[in-house]
Amino acid sequence: MSTIETCLSPELIHLHQIKGKIVVVVDIFRASSTMVTALANGVQCILPVRDLEQCRAYKKEGWKIAGERNGQQADGFDLGNSPLAYTNRQLSGEKIAMTTTNGTRAISLVQNEASEVLIGAFLNINALANYLKAMNNDILVVCAGWKGRFNVEDALFAGAFSMAIGRKHECDATLAMEALFQSSKNNLAGFLQKASHAKRLQNHHLEKDIDFCLTLNQYDEIVFLQNNLLKLK
Amino acid sequence: MSTIETCLSPELIHLHQIKGKIVVVVDIFRASSTMVTALANGVQCILPVRDLEQCRAYKKEGWKIAGERNGQQADGFDLGNSPLAYTNRQLSGEKIAMTTTNGTRAISLVQNEASEVLIGAFLNINALANYLKAMNNDILVVCAGWKGRFNVEDALFAGAFSMAIGRKHECDATLAMEALFQSSKNNLAGFLQKASHAKRLQNHHLEKDIDFCLTLNQYDEIVFLQNNLLKLK
Repeated sequence: MSTIETCLSPELIHLHQIKGKIVVVVDIFRASSTMVTALANGVQCILPVRDLEQCRAYKKEGWKIAGERNGQQADGFDLGNSPLAYTNRQLSGEKIAMTTTNGTRAISLVQNEASEVLIGAFLNINALANYLKAMNNDILVVCAGWKGRFNVEDALFAGAFSMAIGRKHECDATLAMEALFQSSKNNLAGFLQKASHAKRLQNHHLEKDIDFCLTLNQYDEIVFLQNNLLKLK
Repeated sequence: MSTIETCLSPELIHLHQIKGKIVVVVDIFRASSTMVTALANGVQCILPVRDLEQCRAYKKEGWKIAGERNGQQADGFDLGNSPLAYTNRQLSGEKIAMTTTNGTRAISLVQNEASEVLIGAFLNINALANYLKAMNNDILVVCAGWKGRFNVEDALFAGAFSMAIGRKHECDATLAMEALFQSSKNNLAGFLQKASHAKRLQNHHLEKDIDFCLTLNQYDEIVFLQNNLLKLK
């Protein structure tokens, strides 16, 4: 019987076996929500890049560059980390090199060992769950967190996702987050207004981003990593 | 305004400032529950020791030795890690050297920097909360976890404890666990039957230990660390 488990922070990744597993990376506010939105709106591919300098180098090669640190667009970048920059297909056909505080780091930690890396967001949660229900691989959900710390919105996604998949498991983190999602799902936005990263975004007047990132099943597309590039499945 | 925050695993301790804080160490199944029970039942003091060999050496010096690994009493030890071994004051007046899989490790990680180390358990949660309500220090609750992994029973204690203290905070782990405690408090034992460590103990027929560790406010005593020894306050 294949399993599902949750890694609550990249700092705990060494406690989990990655090899052979399908890894779902989640950074709800906002990297994974932005990746799903961008690709569902026609962006050709996204290259996750760990640091700003490396990302800037792609500008000369015709890529759009998206960079964010601590919730704000980095100097000299075409884009920050807002999913709303992509919703009207403005960037359809473009190639994007993207670096974010937490999300791209989480991808880099698992990409060499995982059998497949997928990007999870509330925006496509059912599509991703339906895709994975048919597979026999063990699943590991990796929460990007905030600078190594536990983030409630990423963890809640893990609980919601496990419930959508419906597998038995013996993972306390998954158990706790399933129960928390059960008790908060009727007021997800209200509950997550109190999350530390939601407050950070509110300070930058990014409430619309928060609401959008918490929209369930806006997209049917699935995003995966292939040869270091994020693409639609 | 002083704060409260939760460290969900000893593996995340480097992300938290410890210096100057009051640290509450919690290992509900069973180290911290056993420490509180033992001292509330007349044990003179407990020396937390990191490894079995070091613990054995105290035997010759007249100490009782308590040792557990992976939920079972270690060979040659007087006691395992069951709180029920202490409830009838059988060991009143004794000095106990104790080593456990997770709890004593968590203590050793914080004891040099914390302004005070206290032991938290559901068994004395209100007494401890009332003691700390009167203090102005920042509080850090450290969950012992299971070999570095998140444990739901320790995390739930952190949520219950924060609610009992009633401080504002900006800690996502505390926020999540307060909400989870709110939704599970009317059936705490039922919910925690599904926890991974509860299942481990059930496999060893330790259901009575589980029930006892989840008893709220059995004791009014407070346990703290002084000169490396756990004692009643």
